[in-house]
Amino acid sequence: MASAHMNPAMLVDFYEFTMSYGYFKTGYYRRRTVFDVFFRDIPDGGGFAVAAGLARVVEYVRDLHFEEEDIAYLRGKNLFDEDFLDYLRHFRFTGDIYAVPEGTPVFPGEPILTVCAPAIEAQLMETYLLLTLNHQSLIATKANRIVRAAAGRTVLEFGSRRAQGADGAIAGARAAYVGGCHGTACALTDMAYGVPAGGTMAHAWVQMFKTEYEAFRTYCEIFPTNAVLLVDTFNVLKSGVPNAIRAFKEVLLPRGITNFGIRLDSGDMAYLSKRARRMLDDAGLPGCKIYASNSLDEYTIRDLIRQGAEIDTFGVGERLITAKSDAVFGGVYKLAAVEEDGVLVPRIKISESTAKITNPHLKRVWRLYDRETGMAMADQICVYDETIDDTKPLTIFDQHETWKRKTLENFEARELLVPIFKNGELVYDVPDIAATRAYCADCVAHLWEEVKRFDNPHTYYVDLSQKLYDIKQEMLASYARGEH
Amino acid sequence: MASAHMNPAMLVDFYEFTMSYGYFKTGYYRRRTVFDVFFRDIPDGGGFAVAAGLARVVEYVRDLHFEEEDIAYLRGKNLFDEDFLDYLRHFRFTGDIYAVPEGTPVFPGEPILTVCAPAIEAQLMETYLLLTLNHQSLIATKANRIVRAAAGRTVLEFGSRRAQGADGAIAGARAAYVGGCHGTACALTDMAYGVPAGGTMAHAWVQMFKTEYEAFRTYCEIFPTNAVLLVDTFNVLKSGVPNAIRAFKEVLLPRGITNFGIRLDSGDMAYLSKRARRMLDDAGLPGCKIYASNSLDEYTIRDLIRQGAEIDTFGVGERLITAKSDAVFGGVYKLAAVEEDGVLVPRIKISESTAKITNPHLKRVWRLYDRETGMAMADQICVYDETIDDTKPLTIFDQHETWKRKTLENFEARELLVPIFKNGELVYDVPDIAATRAYCADCVAHLWEEVKRFDNPHTYYVDLSQKLYDIKQEMLASYARGEH
Repeated sequence: MASAHMNPAMLVDFYEFTMSYGYFKTGYYRRRTVFDVFFRDIPDGGGFAVAAGLARVVEYVRDLHFEEEDIAYLRGKNLFDEDFLDYLRHFRFTGDIYAVPEGTPVFPGEPILTVCAPAIEAQLMETYLLLTLNHQSLIATKANRIVRAAAGRTVLEFGSRRAQGADGAIAGARAAYVGGCHGTACALTDMAYGVPAGGTMAHAWVQMFKTEYEAFRTYCEIFPTNAVLLVDTFNVLKSGVPNAIRAFKEVLLPRGITNFGIRLDSGDMAYLSKRARRMLDDAGLPGCKIYASNSLDEYTIRDLIRQGAEIDTFGVGERLITAKSDAVFGGVYKLAAVEEDGVLVPRIKISESTAKITNPHLKRVWRLYDRETGMAMADQICVYDETIDDTKPLTIFDQHETWKRKTLENFEARELLVPIFKNGELVYDVPDIAATRAYCADCVAHLWEEVKRFDNPHTYYVDLSQKLYDIKQEMLASYARGEH
Repeated sequence: MASAHMNPAMLVDFYEFTMSYGYFKTGYYRRRTVFDVFFRDIPDGGGFAVAAGLARVVEYVRDLHFEEEDIAYLRGKNLFDEDFLDYLRHFRFTGDIYAVPEGTPVFPGEPILTVCAPAIEAQLMETYLLLTLNHQSLIATKANRIVRAAAGRTVLEFGSRRAQGADGAIAGARAAYVGGCHGTACALTDMAYGVPAGGTMAHAWVQMFKTEYEAFRTYCEIFPTNAVLLVDTFNVLKSGVPNAIRAFKEVLLPRGITNFGIRLDSGDMAYLSKRARRMLDDAGLPGCKIYASNSLDEYTIRDLIRQGAEIDTFGVGERLITAKSDAVFGGVYKLAAVEEDGVLVPRIKISESTAKITNPHLKRVWRLYDRETGMAMADQICVYDETIDDTKPLTIFDQHETWKRKTLENFEARELLVPIFKNGELVYDVPDIAATRAYCADCVAHLWEEVKRFDNPHTYYVDLSQKLYDIKQEMLASYARGEH
């Protein structure tokens, strides 16, 4: 969205180039490495996050290359030799990527995307992969909270003007739709991704005319269907609603049109919506919808509904498109294994904080569903060569408090990570956006309500298989023995 | 940054099209309108904001047009007639834009950008203008706080992976530089905007080798100058710093190289940096710099410095690139005047909240400097046909508490809003980024310390001229008389 050359391959922390050059010069670059994307904390203290951004990652990886302009920039740094620049000139992704589909509920500590590729390839993707998954998962997660608060009412994304940059608006509106919003105000998101966009008028429209009534009447004449009149430019109850009723009755009802609405954008939404509903009903306009759009988030919406607000559609702006209450999704990209003499050898990142110690090795993740209720009960992370036999009972346990054990019976194990690229080839059909949104809603419907509480939710179980647990413990013991 | 067609002209709230069509059908579109961008609240409760984003606005306005693909999308909505679509096909900006230069400290209520243009042109720009100025001003303002906290030490922007989308990373890193950061980790921001990018290694580099020492030694051999070794992969004081010292002494000192450093990325930065400094000094490496980069913001940095932390360079990530503590800059775009019969007639937006009532009319803004101290004392907003004669005393007053008056003498009045476009032509030379950054620093140096407090700062005076005040009061009185 800027005039300058903008190759996403260059949206990368500079140290990825210095490290890559180091791998190149030492020969390490021919080794396969495994990197996981995972996160540690769920935004807003929620019980789960919604993964999003994979479609963009697919585009990025498929198109990943360096142009002569990029090479020239790097040459100008006087850090890299021509052999390396030539390597970049012919660079393309040759590895494997596994990821959870967009819209999947995900939990701390489990891989949501895994790259298995030669060291330089895996390294150079870090920044873009993280930024894409972090941003879109952040917004999809927030949108899902807001949509759940709205309890079946329509939620529209209205935040472009307050987004953090052009992509924040566009990719953000797309992620909000994945998370459950019904549409957006952003025309470009509609064009680019098929997220339905709509809108009618701002205060400027009303101010442009001599009177509010003239503004409303004119709008109804030009757009007789789906007219939504903004009624708070002067005074909602004394001026806006009466003028809207008059315009609807004079212009639309005579034509037999009854799908119209009013929008409240300031003041107390509970009080105003109830009063407006009464006025509309008394005027014989029970079909007139009421839209509200003033600094809304999941808590305000929940409270409004509790207070009996008569709102049919919520337009949610800055608090959704920036996830203002907790504006960072902290996904990280950590080395989990390195090939040595043709064999994948697990790697671990030690930390003083137990929760920050990584899960080593190339892994698979299974979600375990109760066959009776259909609900998700736990996730289990296994080593890549394990499978789960869901015809037999399975005992799972907490990796930190190992005495917390549970034996599952009559369950179904579904694998979460699916192949996206194999040997550099795209092997995944990205579903269309409506299917992704429906998939998300279905997944969330199969989580227990306890996990969906906004505050202090139940912690969903994400456990390690015995084999993975043993590998991790042995690596920690080896570290404690000073073997590094 | 996505494969789809992405014309910034379409990054627009859909209602801009419905309103524009309404102006088109009613003939209103030939009238000139005046819209102001201004904001009401300073993020983080600070005393001023730093305006940024104008360079991007200039590119946007200069290139503003609709493509056939955009027209086809709009046609598909079945809302607009072919005359209007043809109008859009030949659309270009023909109006005037005035704005404060990037890097200018700005205050609530004053226009930071004004569009004076035919109604449709002004309307269709709203979303992109707001999103650009809101985003970049948010990050420049946050960066300026962080840079001030660092009190002369180096601050680098490290947040790309946690940014809200690609543009959040790129334009964000640029805005952070305008606000005073010394560089970024983002290579693309360097290429596109000339913000210096650098970086050395992540934990993955250290983990890739058999031992930490081998990783450090190898890095120093490949990049003998500016080697910054990440020392917290295992244990900072027991392993990281000793291994770094050994690598520096064995590889770099023999070559006479002394510009190198270590980076701390976890643990207590005050304690670790002091201990590390002592170890480095004892090892005869007083020139070794210490970098720190763990969840930093202005408060942590200020506290670390107070506690005697021995940190030379701060790498600031997610809390800067998303302005996490207050992630929205609330700039709005409000109608201030409409041409009627060839004359600009002021418009006002009424609100129950006094602070939300807009300042009507096409305006100019002056910053008043004390000639003795060189410091900024107040801003005054005037009607477009007023000037300030700074050879005579000037009495300014608060528009809400009009008894608060102050007479200025020996002052200099400098106009804030400069012409950017005149009759659709670009008349402004966008300064280069380094000049913009220096201009920002110079402006901030001429604000009193009282305005720069992080918490509870002095409220800088932004007053109306008597003429503008009178116009506004008469409009409010007219509204109270029911004349709308």
